[in-house]
Amino acid sequence: MTEPLESVSWAGDAVEYIDQRLLPSELRRERAHDVDSIVTAIATLAVRGAPCIGVFGAYGIALLRSQIADDAAFHEAAQRVRSARPTAVNLMWAVDRVLSSDDMLQEAQAIQREQSAVDDAIAQSGLELIPKNARILTHCNTGPLATAGGGTALGVIIRAQRAGKHPHVFVDETRPLLQGSRLTAFELQHAGVGVTLQVDGAAAIAMAAKKIDLVIVGADRIARNGDTANKIGTYGLAILAAHHKIPFYVAAPRSTFDFTLAHGADIPIEERRPDEVLAFGGAVVAPEGIDVYNPAFDVTPGRLITAFVTEYGVIRPPYAETVPALELRPNFSVLMRA
Amino acid sequence: MTEPLESVSWAGDAVEYIDQRLLPSELRRERAHDVDSIVTAIATLAVRGAPCIGVFGAYGIALLRSQIADDAAFHEAAQRVRSARPTAVNLMWAVDRVLSSDDMLQEAQAIQREQSAVDDAIAQSGLELIPKNARILTHCNTGPLATAGGGTALGVIIRAQRAGKHPHVFVDETRPLLQGSRLTAFELQHAGVGVTLQVDGAAAIAMAAKKIDLVIVGADRIARNGDTANKIGTYGLAILAAHHKIPFYVAAPRSTFDFTLAHGADIPIEERRPDEVLAFGGAVVAPEGIDVYNPAFDVTPGRLITAFVTEYGVIRPPYAETVPALELRPNFSVLMRA
Repeated sequence: MTEPLESVSWAGDAVEYIDQRLLPSELRRERAHDVDSIVTAIATLAVRGAPCIGVFGAYGIALLRSQIADDAAFHEAAQRVRSARPTAVNLMWAVDRVLSSDDMLQEAQAIQREQSAVDDAIAQSGLELIPKNARILTHCNTGPLATAGGGTALGVIIRAQRAGKHPHVFVDETRPLLQGSRLTAFELQHAGVGVTLQVDGAAAIAMAAKKIDLVIVGADRIARNGDTANKIGTYGLAILAAHHKIPFYVAAPRSTFDFTLAHGADIPIEERRPDEVLAFGGAVVAPEGIDVYNPAFDVTPGRLITAFVTEYGVIRPPYAETVPALELRPNFSVLMRA
Repeated sequence: MTEPLESVSWAGDAVEYIDQRLLPSELRRERAHDVDSIVTAIATLAVRGAPCIGVFGAYGIALLRSQIADDAAFHEAAQRVRSARPTAVNLMWAVDRVLSSDDMLQEAQAIQREQSAVDDAIAQSGLELIPKNARILTHCNTGPLATAGGGTALGVIIRAQRAGKHPHVFVDETRPLLQGSRLTAFELQHAGVGVTLQVDGAAAIAMAAKKIDLVIVGADRIARNGDTANKIGTYGLAILAAHHKIPFYVAAPRSTFDFTLAHGADIPIEERRPDEVLAFGGAVVAPEGIDVYNPAFDVTPGRLITAFVTEYGVIRPPYAETVPALELRPNFSVLMRA
């Protein structure tokens, strides 16, 4: 068994991280040792994945506190870290939590430990859903690189591998940004899991011809009725899985459930820059001036989802009852400390 | 209205063609004026699309006959053209037809004229299926560039545009080779048709959010029961269309129907080189040594296809009756001459 991929870790006088921009060609660990290198690592996407950015930012604040004695200068530096990626809610939440604590390093370590514990519990919950020698299809990236823990959907798969179940994973390359090719294929290979890469358009024939047993993906946001926003292509996969009578699972922590949302129609869909589709690796692949539809996410109706895999166990329909019940469960980090 | 894209034409002392490798960045016409330049244009995929290669090869033979008086030398050159792409059945068929004719140029022109007439008839047949202001989804490339005529599925769409129906087309980029981005988006733009490009994984949300009215694609091979082999991703699209209750049409000439095949399970699926998926525009996008599943085609069951659009009209279910009936119709080129 290979060592787990630690996307972020504390190195005493620096925050160590894997530069994810170099993957899959090179696995290089770098050290951020001052405010400039912390901000740059986040802003340039060397560190990516919402929970991973949160953990990195938390350690960054602890590092800066150990370096900058002057309170005003420290808070100015902390604000630069906090706003290194304007839409990263996890980053702001983690920075604020560390800033309001008595021992900043201890708090940052607690954030990472809780993250890992949640991922571990998700992996444990999902184990029962993975048959021996399962042929699994997944989409986008949901592994240790993204969470700075064990990962969500990939965490379940890697746990199944360690439990001797020998899963084999068909990975969608996941256009436009190719997180499947670049990151998921790399992480599975690194963890010793059997992996086959395919274009997104091959998912349907893979289900039919390669006898896929189940689909498991992550999530960006889940409504009270189970409607799930996730990487573009997920909704289509769920329809294909239903057509082939294959279970479709979503692995996500409770923090991904937005209990204030009644249903998926309320989830705004971000449209991203056309050049993600128009060009590739520096090469222009489409005619100039062409209109592009480039939604970052789609919404999968809860009725197409067989079950959710959470740190509280497997959540099954009817989601209108089981998802709201999840909100009432005690806080996992409290459970963990007990 | 812009001039039609003539992918291949006779130029008296040369065969003129559009170098399709330069699209969509540049629309450049080149001239093949001897056996070397004819063979190179085919072998390097500057000329592509099965019917288009056939027309190009036919003109090539006529050109060589006008240049090479010695019979043995001419036949040697003709054999080089015939085998420039080993799997191109249309090329061999067209070369043989020209070789066995009395007037080779006249025969080559007849082949192109018949090709155009078939495409025109397909476009005319399909017109009734396209509502005014239709929002259409298509996949891969089925236009004039591929057929050296008017195209099949794109031919229908361009005809609808000329009939004042103002279709708007959502084009899948069509990984791995991006025929949608590179060729279809270009051809529709050139023909003045409204076009929006998207990644293949966006098809499902496009159907739901953009209110797609119909899907129309081409075909590589169709069995007696309507099962249809076409570019990878087609089978998934047909499932998504059925889920959204959207009609799914296949436009193809009778020559694409293989009346000797009982069903799609008998169609062999070519798997192509892994590097189409592993690298892009010179950039490596996946880890070294990763396994790749890269089927060129998939097979869509006839039961997911609303109708076939052919030069003999629209063919509807039950295909077990209507497709075999198509075989018995008189030859279209004979009808055309009448």
